[in-house]
Amino acid sequence: MDQVSLAVNEVWLVVAAVLVMFMQAGFALVEAGFTSARNAGNIIMKNFMDFSVGAVTYWAFGFALAYGSSSLGGFLAWGEVFWFNDPSRASEWFFQVVFAATAATIISGAIAGRVKFSSYLLYTPFITGLIYPIVTHWVWGGGWLAELGFFDFAGSGVVHMLGGVAALAAVLVVGPRVGKYDENGKPRAIPGHSLTHGALGVFILWFGWYGFNAGSTLAAVGQNIAVPAVTTTLAAAAGAIGAMFVAWAITGKPDVGFTINGVLAGLVGVTAGTASVSFGASILIGLIGGALMVGSVIFLERVGVDDPVGAISVHGTVGVWGVVAVALFSDDASLGPQLVGAAAIIAWAFALSFIVFKAIDLTAGLRVSREEEATGLDISEHGNYAYPEFVFQHEVVDLVEAANGDEGRRRAPAAGA
Amino acid sequence: MDQVSLAVNEVWLVVAAVLVMFMQAGFALVEAGFTSARNAGNIIMKNFMDFSVGAVTYWAFGFALAYGSSSLGGFLAWGEVFWFNDPSRASEWFFQVVFAATAATIISGAIAGRVKFSSYLLYTPFITGLIYPIVTHWVWGGGWLAELGFFDFAGSGVVHMLGGVAALAAVLVVGPRVGKYDENGKPRAIPGHSLTHGALGVFILWFGWYGFNAGSTLAAVGQNIAVPAVTTTLAAAAGAIGAMFVAWAITGKPDVGFTINGVLAGLVGVTAGTASVSFGASILIGLIGGALMVGSVIFLERVGVDDPVGAISVHGTVGVWGVVAVALFSDDASLGPQLVGAAAIIAWAFALSFIVFKAIDLTAGLRVSREEEATGLDISEHGNYAYPEFVFQHEVVDLVEAANGDEGRRRAPAAGA
Amino acid sequence: MDQVSLAVNEVWLVVAAVLVMFMQAGFALVEAGFTSARNAGNIIMKNFMDFSVGAVTYWAFGFALAYGSSSLGGFLAWGEVFWFNDPSRASEWFFQVVFAATAATIISGAIAGRVKFSSYLLYTPFITGLIYPIVTHWVWGGGWLAELGFFDFAGSGVVHMLGGVAALAAVLVVGPRVGKYDENGKPRAIPGHSLTHGALGVFILWFGWYGFNAGSTLAAVGQNIAVPAVTTTLAAAAGAIGAMFVAWAITGKPDVGFTINGVLAGLVGVTAGTASVSFGASILIGLIGGALMVGSVIFLERVGVDDPVGAISVHGTVGVWGVVAVALFSDDASLGPQLVGAAAIIAWAFALSFIVFKAIDLTAGLRVSREEEATGLDISEHGNYAYPEFVFQHEVVDLVEAANGDEGRRRAPAAGA
Repeated sequence: MDQVSLAVNEVWLVVAAVLVMFMQAGFALVEAGFTSARNAGNIIMKNFMDFSVGAVTYWAFGFALAYGSSSLGGFLAWGEVFWFNDPSRASEWFFQVVFAATAATIISGAIAGRVKFSSYLLYTPFITGLIYPIVTHWVWGGGWLAELGFFDFAGSGVVHMLGGVAALAAVLVVGPRVGKYDENGKPRAIPGHSLTHGALGVFILWFGWYGFNAGSTLAAVGQNIAVPAVTTTLAAAAGAIGAMFVAWAITGKPDVGFTINGVLAGLVGVTAGTASVSFGASILIGLIGGALMVGSVIFLERVGVDDPVGAISVHGTVGVWGVVAVALFSDDASLGPQLVGAAAIIAWAFALSFIVFKAIDLTAGLRVSREEEATGLDISEHGNYAYPEFVFQHEVVDLVEAANGDEGRRRAPAAGA
Repeated sequence: MDQVSLAVNEVWLVVAAVLVMFMQAGFALVEAGFTSARNAGNIIMKNFMDFSVGAVTYWAFGFALAYGSSSLGGFLAWGEVFWFNDPSRASEWFFQVVFAATAATIISGAIAGRVKFSSYLLYTPFITGLIYPIVTHWVWGGGWLAELGFFDFAGSGVVHMLGGVAALAAVLVVGPRVGKYDENGKPRAIPGHSLTHGALGVFILWFGWYGFNAGSTLAAVGQNIAVPAVTTTLAAAAGAIGAMFVAWAITGKPDVGFTINGVLAGLVGVTAGTASVSFGASILIGLIGGALMVGSVIFLERVGVDDPVGAISVHGTVGVWGVVAVALFSDDASLGPQLVGAAAIIAWAFALSFIVFKAIDLTAGLRVSREEEATGLDISEHGNYAYPEFVFQHEVVDLVEAANGDEGRRRAPAAGA
Repeated sequence: MDQVSLAVNEVWLVVAAVLVMFMQAGFALVEAGFTSARNAGNIIMKNFMDFSVGAVTYWAFGFALAYGSSSLGGFLAWGEVFWFNDPSRASEWFFQVVFAATAATIISGAIAGRVKFSSYLLYTPFITGLIYPIVTHWVWGGGWLAELGFFDFAGSGVVHMLGGVAALAAVLVVGPRVGKYDENGKPRAIPGHSLTHGALGVFILWFGWYGFNAGSTLAAVGQNIAVPAVTTTLAAAAGAIGAMFVAWAITGKPDVGFTINGVLAGLVGVTAGTASVSFGASILIGLIGGALMVGSVIFLERVGVDDPVGAISVHGTVGVWGVVAVALFSDDASLGPQLVGAAAIIAWAFALSFIVFKAIDLTAGLRVSREEEATGLDISEHGNYAYPEFVFQHEVVDLVEAANGDEGRRRAPAAGA
């Protein structure tokens, strides 16, 4: 390729990857905003480590398992890119590592508020170094699912469904938060501490998703990079609308949390077919994605799966929908291979994640103590409050006693407060 | 055009549009930060719906009315892009839809804290589908104002003045917030709940504005895309400086809110002439824009126009200035057509917005009850607090009573608290 | 150069500059989040003015002193770009002005909470107009350090070390915050008011840093722009990991503040060699940078240098490391010139900044009164609270008295609260 075309493609791919990288900030804000203020710092730490440990792992072996020069039976790659140091593939690595980090970061929200930080750290290398890269080899690295005709343009299945399923495995191992269910097993609402942070996070994710979907063209010359941008816009919009009206019908109010998660559902839904489906179809995919997400959140909460941010529904449930939708609304995929691929990725991601989390649980221990959970992970795991100057609802009785001369002390929010 | 040039132009236009899209996050944060914590979730919902409903409307008919293949008398376009599905115009649609959403979102801040969410939803399709697209046809679609010689490179008038004027119409219909004026009609300051969110919002808007202004070249090959970036930088900087010193002279302090709104004023002011005026002139335009904004905010507050975020002044008043300034500081425009164009856009945007808001008011009702307004729209309209774990000033008496054994309950901030 | 290549390079440089501009938001959030809520508005004002005053100053004379057409003895430039108005150099100016603003903004965090706003305003033009441009002439404008073989690809030394050293000078003149040290001179921890804001700020800085490092190629055609993106990613990741484990070893907990500052340390460390070092070396540079930063923060705090956000350590100490590391890990630099260059820049930046701050201190006065410091700069300097609706820890006694019928009033947080 001539030097100018190469430069155009590199500019596009690097800019797209930078946008995807920024999605990490979006995930951190959504997860922190949708959960308690006493765990905000811990959420942040997990998000920074997802990317940091993830990048180093992907440099050491993840990239090689996905895109090394030879394929071992279509199952995993192997070759010269361990301890990655090939400048000619730098843009490729950069675009792939931010995807790997996205898959990893989906999990931290689902298990917010109750997992030991040190144990969480043990899991991160598995997803960015092993579970995710091998699936990308199957689909994008010329592996067995690619041979079979499985099609997933930007990763509804490869990234989001995989992350959502791993999150489900993690939640099943670690169990619900203390106070999430009453003595009769009825779920209690535990609202997040900042809708503003949650909303900003969703806007950042939407913004970064243009890099995710349109950047998956991997080049600009000879590609129509604006088509995925349009379907991404319309599906996100429709996802918000669909989720809002369904939630409105069910709860009687246009709920903020469901609506903004609807944006993410629309985005996840269209990701597989973002360059394939018509613009009208992308609206339909978004609407259904938003509605599905609301149903999935309500269902999972009822059956005892405590996912504070809705990550399993947004990425897992709607990820499946995305993989199916591209077969329904375009000629680039057909239903059979899509279902086989979805089943294979689900089985792989669930089984391996379950085994790893279970192994961590049986050795290092996965869950913090009830006291630490009640105190909040920020102070018990990291030694600092996220918002030390502000007064919280749960503190008021203490503070009044202190004001009246009794012994009072700074206490963290009670679980479920 | 050759394939490589096409790719360069597409990369530029798509990246610019993505930056403009992110301005929605900026608007949401500015509007939420500058108003009460008890309405933050509602503001967020309105901003998400501005873009979501706007995108679907613009797909269905807004784009066709602006840029369809034939022009009906220079007044509106018509043609084959209803239910838009033309991949070859995808980048064009994408760049235009984010502009339409910008025009829409200007209004939500001005009427913060007192409008029914369901009624607000009724207005959104009008601005993104009808009011705004028809004006873009006049100016950018080869319509009658373009014929007349009206010049507005990136939309000081077409987008910002239009949005600001629509906001004025909305405020006149809905009236001021409860508690904004005392019994003698004297305005009371109601500070916003988070300067940090407001400031981040302004930075995001500044960031996105490079897409707005420099992206309005619509292409990179053969264009100087850096000139608008420089004038945008200097006008924003000068706007902050101008607003700060004028506010300092008037109030005795360098006020944060005025200063950061000064950035926006500088940006709005330079938008029409961003590719035309000299770098020195862009500083002057920004300085005057910032000063004008401060004067306009103070004036409007005194005459009973309650605009909590200053949107009418920032976008409306300074939008007029931008349309005029390009004639004063460049040869690309002359004063006559600019004044005719400004008058026409103002008349159109004000009349239609007033009629639509009045019609909604007389049918569905535009305003929430006094009780709902006092409680806050987050809980009354959406069923959730934005910050449920934090203690607010107005709650303290209740909480102390509760601590002392009396009946106390979680109450929302009183109006004007 | 042909028109298409030119366009590709312009798109790349403008997009990169826009990313760097957004770093201003990151600095504002890091500095606000890491300090008290009673000074958040003041921090924001300083950040907006760093960029605003900086841009106008750089337009008037800063750019000419750095990149004017003739060099006066290799010490400073001179020529026709005073009152800059050359469209053909617009992208160059734009990329340089955002670097100048970065250097300026490093200082505001280090002196947070105790400096008169009007006096701070006096310093800003010196750094963006004089101190920084002259150093850039030395290194990037073909000046004496370039002649000597000093190498600093994207500014570990030219931007960050310079900013960090200027911050040290400022802190030495202004002294520590009231309450930072007890009567025995032992430092007290004063945690920041929002880890979420701090973390978002770091993510934004990381995001913008891709423009800073990869954009320093200054062109895309014939360059490998992805190599700096990869080293930037790996060094940031390793910086977080290095800082976290070192802090964990020292304090017993994986501290959030140290970890996220570790990202910045990794970034500062790799900036000089971002296009030169191997990918593996970038990890090592980041790890060491993160560890160095933790040590430097602890050391400076002990010796009485009160830098609330760690700016001197992150930018100054690790800036030196970056300048040295490029000599250790690549052939593009050698140790002798690097050490001479570092010493020259340190001497210049420290001496001039110290003189300017001292002169301001002796004339206008640099420091607010103890009362103003205790009240907080937001209310004393700017007349508004950043978060007026929220209740703060220090207010509770007052509010309880008020609730009990006594005279109570809204008071700002006490110093060190």
